[in-house]
Formats: sequence, C-alpha cells, structure tokens
Amino acid sequence: MRVRSAGRGGAPGARGPGMADTALFEFLLTEMVAELWARDRDPDPGPRGQKTSLSALEGMGFRVGQALGERLPRELPAFREELDALKFLCKDLWAALFQKQMDSLRTNHQGTYVLQDNSFPLLVRMASGVQYVDEAPKFLAFPCGLLRGALSTLGIRSLVTASVTTLPACKFQVVIQKS
Amino acid sequence: MRVRSAGRGGAPGARGPGMADTALFEFLLTEMVAELWARDRDPDPGPRGQKTSLSALEGMGFRVGQALGERLPRELPAFREELDALKFLCKDLWAALFQKQMDSLRTNHQGTYVLQDNSFPLLVRMASGVQYVDEAPKFLAFPCGLLRGALSTLGIRSLVTASVTTLPACKFQVVIQKS
Repeated sequence: MRVRSAGRGGAPGARGPGMADTALFEFLLTEMVAELWARDRDPDPGPRGQKTSLSALEGMGFRVGQALGERLPRELPAFREELDALKFLCKDLWAALFQKQMDSLRTNHQGTYVLQDNSFPLLVRMASGVQYVDEAPKFLAFPCGLLRGALSTLGIRSLVTASVTTLPACKFQVVIQKS
Repeated sequence: MRVRSAGRGGAPGARGPGMADTALFEFLLTEMVAELWARDRDPDPGPRGQKTSLSALEGMGFRVGQALGERLPRELPAFREELDALKFLCKDLWAALFQKQMDSLRTNHQGTYVLQDNSFPLLVRMASGVQYVDEAPKFLAFPCGLLRGALSTLGIRSLVTASVTTLPACKFQVVIQKS
C-alpha cells in the first residue's frame, strides 16, 4: 500500500493546520533547556556546570542566529546604518521567530540599544508566579546568542545581555563593540 | 527613540522573508545534537554516555511530538483507523516540520508500517560522503521520538526505529503495540 506521493508545495494546507512553527521552535528550545539542566543536576555532571549550560545555550543561539542571518542579506536591502540592523532584528527577525515584534527599541546613540519585549513568548508560560524569575536566565541565554549571531552576520560585533523585572517582560541590552 | 510598535499580524512580510521556519527547526536540532555529542566527548562525561544521548534525543522528540499532537485533534477530523493516523504523520506532520511529505508508506496490515523519506532534510547535509552513515543515528533519534510522541497523543502506542542504507534516504519502522 502506498500513500500518494506529493512533492514540495503540494496540496493546500499541507503545512499542517494549526501547527504554528513558532510552537515547534518553542517546544524544541524548552526541551533543550530542560535536558541541559537535567544533565547539570547529575550526581557527577563532569567538569561542566550550570554556568557552562548558559554559555552553551548562548553559543547555540549565536550559531543559529548566524545561520539565519546568512539566509537574509541576499533578499533584503543593505543595512546602511547600525540602527537599520537593530530595527531589522526587532521587526523581521523577532516576527519570524516569535510571531510578534519587539515592543520597543531605545538607544543612547552611543552604541547601546535596549530592546524590550513586554510579553516574551519563552517566558509567558512561566509568568504565573514571580518565584520563577530565577528560572528566566536559562530561557534568555539562547535568544541573547541569537541576537548576537544575527548581528555578527550583518558585520556588527556586540555583547548582548538580558534582564527580567516583571515576567513575562524582558529587556535585551545590545552594546556594540567598535573594533 | 522608539520603533513603531506593531502587534501580531502586522505589516505584510513581517514573518521575515526567506526565513523558512523549517530552517530554524533544523538549525536548532543540529545544534542540539552537536551540544549533546560534545558533552559525551568530555574527558569526564559523568554517568551518561552516548547511548544516553540517543535516548535523550528520542525522549525530547517524544515530548515535542506529544505537544504538537495535542494541538491537532481539535482542528482535524477524528482518525477512524490506525492507517489514517499514519497517513496524517506522513503528510501533515512531515510537511509542517520539513516542508515535504514522506515519499512512501507501506504496511503489512499487521501493525507494522514503514515510512520512507528518500531525501530526509536532516540527512541531506551529510549526504556528501557515505562515510557519514555512522553519524546518521544521532539525527534520527529525535524524529523517531517525534513520530512516537505524535502517535501517543492520537492514542496509539508504538515502537519507532530508523535505518539508513543510502544517504540521504531513510526508513522509519513503526510497530504498533497492542495493549
């Protein structure tokens, strides 16, 4: 017995009704965070610790951000200014990843940018109790790396950190590294 | 300075041109596999080994498959037969994840199904050299779990294994567990 084969771009709705890809990405990232944390809780976790898990997640985010960034410039107008690149992250990159845009972008015009998301999807699930603020950093390391990686592909070196005051809102601070 | 805020469903093209979500999923999964393997290469990897990484990836796939499965039945007609569920995996689930469908589905009508993908996206990158066939299992553990998890949500208990003979083709064997 064979299922009728259909190539790419087959029947309408073939992408699967209701299976938003953003959900897939979030499920996968949540599992990844859980797995790395479980390994850190091992009785004998080896020479790596929790700090290394954060740094591993940041590194994974960086490489995914780079890879995504490499797919973009061919199809987009060049970024004439640093600010254009940051706006691109806030609008297009965020929308592609999380189906929403950043809520605000502020800059001191000296190479520091603050990107605020009032309802960051990876934190929304955690927002039921303020006691979980301590858990937030492990969900923010990957997106920090992602922003840094995408900027890197656009030719901009940066440091990216995140902070949470009230769940599920968070701020990403991007400090451009002048070479 | 503020970027004009735009809610969900904002400007046309806001999802990010060319950033197929399938790429995001593949990048993330590739990074996850690499990170788990790097940990297993640690001089002191702790009590977990490579076999445990395969089983961890299968488990992550299972939970993601369950979570995806839970989003589906409300929007889809009920699956009257086991075969309907398998067809659904081959068409809709695969299309949602990999932008393509399985190339064939065969069954012995006794609870065993063989799902063949002639060009499985996670293996395409590896297809340049037959020497990498040994590397294939680590990219197949997650999708095996995913199939098992999605079936589980549809009320079907199964064992799912994968095999590769010629990259980038692979077969997933699903054996239904009658309770």
